[in-house]
Amino acid sequence: MTFFTVSKRSNKSRARLGTISTDHGRVKTPSFVPCATKATLKALHPKQVAQTDVELAFVNTYHLAVHPGAEVLEEAGGAHAFSHLPVSLMSDSGGFQVFSLGRADQRRAKMRSTQKDDSPLLVKISEDGVKFRSAYDGTLLEFTPESSIHFQRQIGADIIMAFDECTYLEATHAYTKKSLDRTHDWLERCIRVTKESDFKSLSGNASVAPHRQYLYGIIQGGQYQDLREESAQHIANTDVPGVAIGGVSVGESKGAMRQQVGWCAPFLPEQKPVHLLGVGQFDDIWDLVGAGIDTFDCVEPTRISRMGIVYAWSSVEEFMKRRLDGDTKEYKKSFFEVDVTKKIYKKSFEPIDPNCGCEVCGQFTKAYLHHLFKSRELLGHTLATIHNLYTMERFMAKVRESIDEGKL
Amino acid sequence: MTFFTVSKRSNKSRARLGTISTDHGRVKTPSFVPCATKATLKALHPKQVAQTDVELAFVNTYHLAVHPGAEVLEEAGGAHAFSHLPVSLMSDSGGFQVFSLGRADQRRAKMRSTQKDDSPLLVKISEDGVKFRSAYDGTLLEFTPESSIHFQRQIGADIIMAFDECTYLEATHAYTKKSLDRTHDWLERCIRVTKESDFKSLSGNASVAPHRQYLYGIIQGGQYQDLREESAQHIANTDVPGVAIGGVSVGESKGAMRQQVGWCAPFLPEQKPVHLLGVGQFDDIWDLVGAGIDTFDCVEPTRISRMGIVYAWSSVEEFMKRRLDGDTKEYKKSFFEVDVTKKIYKKSFEPIDPNCGCEVCGQFTKAYLHHLFKSRELLGHTLATIHNLYTMERFMAKVRESIDEGKL
Repeated sequence: MTFFTVSKRSNKSRARLGTISTDHGRVKTPSFVPCATKATLKALHPKQVAQTDVELAFVNTYHLAVHPGAEVLEEAGGAHAFSHLPVSLMSDSGGFQVFSLGRADQRRAKMRSTQKDDSPLLVKISEDGVKFRSAYDGTLLEFTPESSIHFQRQIGADIIMAFDECTYLEATHAYTKKSLDRTHDWLERCIRVTKESDFKSLSGNASVAPHRQYLYGIIQGGQYQDLREESAQHIANTDVPGVAIGGVSVGESKGAMRQQVGWCAPFLPEQKPVHLLGVGQFDDIWDLVGAGIDTFDCVEPTRISRMGIVYAWSSVEEFMKRRLDGDTKEYKKSFFEVDVTKKIYKKSFEPIDPNCGCEVCGQFTKAYLHHLFKSRELLGHTLATIHNLYTMERFMAKVRESIDEGKL
Repeated sequence: MTFFTVSKRSNKSRARLGTISTDHGRVKTPSFVPCATKATLKALHPKQVAQTDVELAFVNTYHLAVHPGAEVLEEAGGAHAFSHLPVSLMSDSGGFQVFSLGRADQRRAKMRSTQKDDSPLLVKISEDGVKFRSAYDGTLLEFTPESSIHFQRQIGADIIMAFDECTYLEATHAYTKKSLDRTHDWLERCIRVTKESDFKSLSGNASVAPHRQYLYGIIQGGQYQDLREESAQHIANTDVPGVAIGGVSVGESKGAMRQQVGWCAPFLPEQKPVHLLGVGQFDDIWDLVGAGIDTFDCVEPTRISRMGIVYAWSSVEEFMKRRLDGDTKEYKKSFFEVDVTKKIYKKSFEPIDPNCGCEVCGQFTKAYLHHLFKSRELLGHTLATIHNLYTMERFMAKVRESIDEGKL
């Protein structure tokens, strides 16, 4: 089994059609990767996940290490056996949460500098890694390249990420360079511990067949072109099965994010899958498959579902039509969205979108969704999530079709 | 189509096997009726409801009249068309909520008697009915026998209830007698407006076929034997398709509740279905089918599901075995329950109950449920609800089997 195969390359851009193959299934790329943060795709039963076209979902190592503990997933036989999610899984390294929560804590500590701060969340950053206190129950967790890989081994996702430092927006060139060198060093340490067990995992649980885990190196470099280029070249030349681009979603604008991806693009490997961490709006995906991105994760479609915000397929179609006609502008999220909690939908006995083919639009009205959200009924979250994921998957199918037809 | 047929009568008690037939399906009795208060069976997709053996669910007129408004359900074509719940539906009259919320408000008003009370919830009780201000948005709602039936027509459940006053625990004999006479008068008014449209409803929405609605009269009489007997005889002799017993769940003990049902039992009609409002624990159901009760509604199995409390089938079996061996004692709820939020289940890689045949026990562990509840993930509510309803339905099947075999 080859981990990643490319079946077609665009002659207009770096866009390509491919397949990621894991021991839990195949993933047609370009692919959208919804979040199943805590080993559950929020508000959906695994059978409902199976009825979507989702093929790959994202779990968060930090959140699972905090609760229930990565050792619980290991004893269960890994995230698949624990959750019965019927898709391939990708885990992050925990680095993003460790550093961003740590910074938030430093800011809070500054704001309350007159108070005594008895138990800071972030205990210590060093070349070795990060010591961290769980916000859940105060347990001391250590995130190092070795422990991150160990946690990810216990969680058992098909695709795992090297431990990296995601630098913050205001970081200077000097700090970012130092951090980048550390991230590259950490990658070597991740590769070493990963290779030690030959990409197999979970042999601890006899009832679960071992499966391969594929490690991605992560390109960092903040907002500095020279560092992004250096990192992209470095990661592309490292012996890992895949590549991810990290830290671009912390920026202050879509323009900056795209520019950073653009700096990396010429150096991205032709034979390895490329993941873009934390990016996934319609216009971002449409435009960035052209930079050579194969997979995108983003909390948005599932998060807004729980706020009563649903996608309008007609707007997605209008957007694609405009892009194919040469439009290049940025889109606000609201362009694609319908907020069913608004009073105007109280008696709207129409589906969310008459052109949507999902089971929710085939059966339920905006008036019913409005009632569910205003009454805080959980079924609202479920129906909105089914609809939004259906819309994302239909959009991704159109992206792949457009590459196949040579339009993108 | 006959609304209610009895296929077997016990020679040990008033227990019987029957079938309620509505335009939305058949209901094997004795039957448990879970709550779908706001036209959604909390945490379940209608397809998941279809996978349970639930045949009849309960919707609350007061809650639906408050939000989204009964007129919204009417325009949608009734609760079935609005919610796609694939079962027969029973609605209450709204009386229980109107009176109990009203009393709670009066108590609150007393407690804050030094404060100015600008907008009391309960505006006025009279012979005509009750004026009430919606806690949701302040709308003035009027509950009279006529308006209750009108709301229930708009909601369109298959079984509807006459508007009644549910007296409070401390009510004197004199007050309860006065209230009972009023409830009996109100029943006549309900019958009049119901007959006017010949038990058909929802002709206002051309896209939905009209369906029959069957009116139940409600036995009240509080804690007074003479009044319960008077009411049972009165309701049994009234020309309505079914009978309900109300107001027994407000008492202070199971013993008092059973005594009140027992007073009514000799007068219950042999050819009409009998519903017991608000009662539904395992021992209550097992014992009270012998009093001639055919259907039971109770929030409990679905409410505790959302708190992480699930039934242990082994305990239900143990209880039935004891009852068949002659035991008659009262059971605490905790006897039947497992609280998966407890820390001891963190690494419990076993199903809730190895003897349970439900899909949740076939696939998921207590450790996963523990994690979902501790992480406040909605899937926990869904899985616990599927399991608890499965257990209730399996228990009801055993109740029917025991009647069929002449054991109960």
